[in-house]
Amino acid sequence: MKIATRPEGKVSFKALFEPRNIAVIGSFKEVLMGGYGVTKSLLDFGFSGNIYPVNPVYSETLGMKVYPTADQVPDVIDLAIIVTPPSAVPTVIGQCAQRGAKAAIIVSDGFAEASKEGAILQHEVVDIAHRNGMRLIGPNTIGIINTANGLVTTPYFTGYDRIQRGAVAYSSQTGIIGAQALPYEDYACPVSKMCDFGNKCDLNEIDLLEYLADDPETKVIAIHTEDIKDGRKFMDVAQRIAANKPVLVLKPGRNEASAKAVASHTGSLAGNDQIYENAFKQAGVIRVDTWQEFLEIPKVFASQPLPQGNRIAVFTVSGAAGIMAIDAAAEHGLIAAQLSSTTTDKLSMISPRLARNPVDAGQVWTIVTDFIPTIEPMITTLLGDSNVDCILLILWTSSTAQTLALVDMFQRLKPQFSKPMTVWLYGPKLSCKEELSRELETLGVPTYLNLETAAKALGIAANCNRR
Amino acid sequence: MKIATRPEGKVSFKALFEPRNIAVIGSFKEVLMGGYGVTKSLLDFGFSGNIYPVNPVYSETLGMKVYPTADQVPDVIDLAIIVTPPSAVPTVIGQCAQRGAKAAIIVSDGFAEASKEGAILQHEVVDIAHRNGMRLIGPNTIGIINTANGLVTTPYFTGYDRIQRGAVAYSSQTGIIGAQALPYEDYACPVSKMCDFGNKCDLNEIDLLEYLADDPETKVIAIHTEDIKDGRKFMDVAQRIAANKPVLVLKPGRNEASAKAVASHTGSLAGNDQIYENAFKQAGVIRVDTWQEFLEIPKVFASQPLPQGNRIAVFTVSGAAGIMAIDAAAEHGLIAAQLSSTTTDKLSMISPRLARNPVDAGQVWTIVTDFIPTIEPMITTLLGDSNVDCILLILWTSSTAQTLALVDMFQRLKPQFSKPMTVWLYGPKLSCKEELSRELETLGVPTYLNLETAAKALGIAANCNRR
Repeated sequence: MKIATRPEGKVSFKALFEPRNIAVIGSFKEVLMGGYGVTKSLLDFGFSGNIYPVNPVYSETLGMKVYPTADQVPDVIDLAIIVTPPSAVPTVIGQCAQRGAKAAIIVSDGFAEASKEGAILQHEVVDIAHRNGMRLIGPNTIGIINTANGLVTTPYFTGYDRIQRGAVAYSSQTGIIGAQALPYEDYACPVSKMCDFGNKCDLNEIDLLEYLADDPETKVIAIHTEDIKDGRKFMDVAQRIAANKPVLVLKPGRNEASAKAVASHTGSLAGNDQIYENAFKQAGVIRVDTWQEFLEIPKVFASQPLPQGNRIAVFTVSGAAGIMAIDAAAEHGLIAAQLSSTTTDKLSMISPRLARNPVDAGQVWTIVTDFIPTIEPMITTLLGDSNVDCILLILWTSSTAQTLALVDMFQRLKPQFSKPMTVWLYGPKLSCKEELSRELETLGVPTYLNLETAAKALGIAANCNRR
Repeated sequence: MKIATRPEGKVSFKALFEPRNIAVIGSFKEVLMGGYGVTKSLLDFGFSGNIYPVNPVYSETLGMKVYPTADQVPDVIDLAIIVTPPSAVPTVIGQCAQRGAKAAIIVSDGFAEASKEGAILQHEVVDIAHRNGMRLIGPNTIGIINTANGLVTTPYFTGYDRIQRGAVAYSSQTGIIGAQALPYEDYACPVSKMCDFGNKCDLNEIDLLEYLADDPETKVIAIHTEDIKDGRKFMDVAQRIAANKPVLVLKPGRNEASAKAVASHTGSLAGNDQIYENAFKQAGVIRVDTWQEFLEIPKVFASQPLPQGNRIAVFTVSGAAGIMAIDAAAEHGLIAAQLSSTTTDKLSMISPRLARNPVDAGQVWTIVTDFIPTIEPMITTLLGDSNVDCILLILWTSSTAQTLALVDMFQRLKPQFSKPMTVWLYGPKLSCKEELSRELETLGVPTYLNLETAAKALGIAANCNRR
């Protein structure tokens, strides 16, 4: 067994996210799970490198030759994805190392999260990997995503084949961030990378942060974690990176009951929450409160410039929703902008009742047949108002025609996008609303499932710029 | 002009929600707005009474005779829905009164919310109505819904024709509760009545509460309001009713900025928030924080029994989501149930790792081909555990087949539904997830858009029972 230096985490993440050749070791029974599932995901999402399936029983899968063992793969292996029974993992790692593998994703479960024996085996696996100059993700993980090269490793059925390339990197300790669990295509949220650390036996958020710091695709980093093993180092690295790229954290285990549950889930201790809370604040890490916030708030940093101040304008087609938006915005440090006289003059020319913030276009919208020529100049005016630092748009769609007209409008407005915007949509048909949301995301306009999150995202962005 | 006693609000709501004959006065241009839109909504949703369109220009609309003026309608009018220009409203009200109308919904806007002249006109309209023994909803409203008789008055296009009959009554001061703004059919949320008060010139939440107190269709009342005019009376009535039917309130205007915005929106003052906060607490009114909570939290009271204590069990297919659920539950006064030994014995027989709370069936689910026979006994066991007061289920669906299998399972489990449950769903396709959500709602199992809301709903229900 060759003994090599343990590669740096950052270097290993290069092998993980940018492999030329991947070996997939596991079962190839067509159950849309296991090695077959991983290989199918790589093919479905158009992975741009080479895939080498490995299994002693099969000779062919999904139109590709299957190699009996990893050391018989006729090429250098950059990344190994292992979906074998736990007991086979040590041997497989050794074989992958013989073909030069720098990193492995251990998808299999049944390690530290399952039993004491599993924990011992996990320890052994890490040891073997390090002796062979390999670093590990997992075990008990659905792996990673890189939208730049179509790398999607989930071993499960997804039912779609496209994830929008964008600037949000997700780090997590759960499979529900995976392509089989999140409707990435339906949401069209902008993703650069995703990594599910599972049991986090070796590589962790700190290593990933170091890699993402220099990743040109990533502008913002969202981390879901149940425990942080080297707190001091995490805070040092996070603080350094947060100065350039916002770092958001969702960390459950705020109370004893969930802390205990964390221990059962990934075999780690959650620690006293107040210590984390203070450390996050000190490091400039933004803590979010819910799973949906974790998914959605980063988007405001992905496509929007930072607000230059904390003055928000709300453009709405519902007066009541406008008020709720101002309410939520105020809770997150924003104030209702005092619109400039140029703006109020322009708005007054359309209707005197429009010349205030929130700009409530509801009444105007409903009395005109073609609403776009009416609302477009209003939004343009707000975009040009130097008293406004950010804009929340509340829009309604009830038909495909309306959706298309709104998308056209945003396409025309795009060159004027000079200040951050978020959008909340409502309407009588989910499909219409979701279509509009998807189209706006594709245009780089972040939309939010909850009205209050659309306001909070802008508040967090404004606060981020003030630090 | 005949002068009659002003009818009690409660009596008027009977005319509003249970009219035999409705006159719709407005334009019948086919623009899916105005009088045409109102009439089309009534027809689409299958209103069970008679509809009399009124307009001096048209002779026929939607296959029905149009009467030139309301006093020429050849029948008693119970309810008038007025969508005329504001200046015509006083005359129209007089004409409706001549045919015995007891109540009117003034859909038209351009009153107190628009200008001083509008406020004066609004005052005049109320005066005329009262002199004629009529009570009013609006102006500036999309009206009401009653799922028991297909009464949906929205003047706009909805694109669907069914709202699930259920036990939640919504009272609001915004059109975004209307059928044209909310995907009632897609969500299949259980609705009894809805009333948008708009400018709230006459009848208000207090009158509605009195009516709903005795409405057998309504088990829970959710009120969105921007101002409460007679605070003391509201609290008295709410307190009395909340003892039997939970009353939830969403009241924006927590801060100065939004209070100012409220003033512009419906011409009313929001008042000091802390006074409201204390009064709500004293009256046993449950305050919710977001629009989505306002829509969703009442559902737990509509179909579920009240929890007999505060011990929650979480059944999950994602360990991490289970922890987030316990975290959120703890924030709302619930504690993780200590499962009984009968339960842990039964769960251990399936897998030793299942015998704890949250019950994480993720690993078991993924290794069996037919997951239902595996998870069904687990849920049955939790339903039968006397140490468990309520259950949060976290489920995943990725295909129609899976959705149908889960629906079948819930159908079988239904006779065992003895304690309150809420559900959070996730999955790779929005359409699958939404289909499952809709089916579960139809079965009386409330599902939630956000994981944390599913936990909060149970916490609020448990707290409600402890009072």
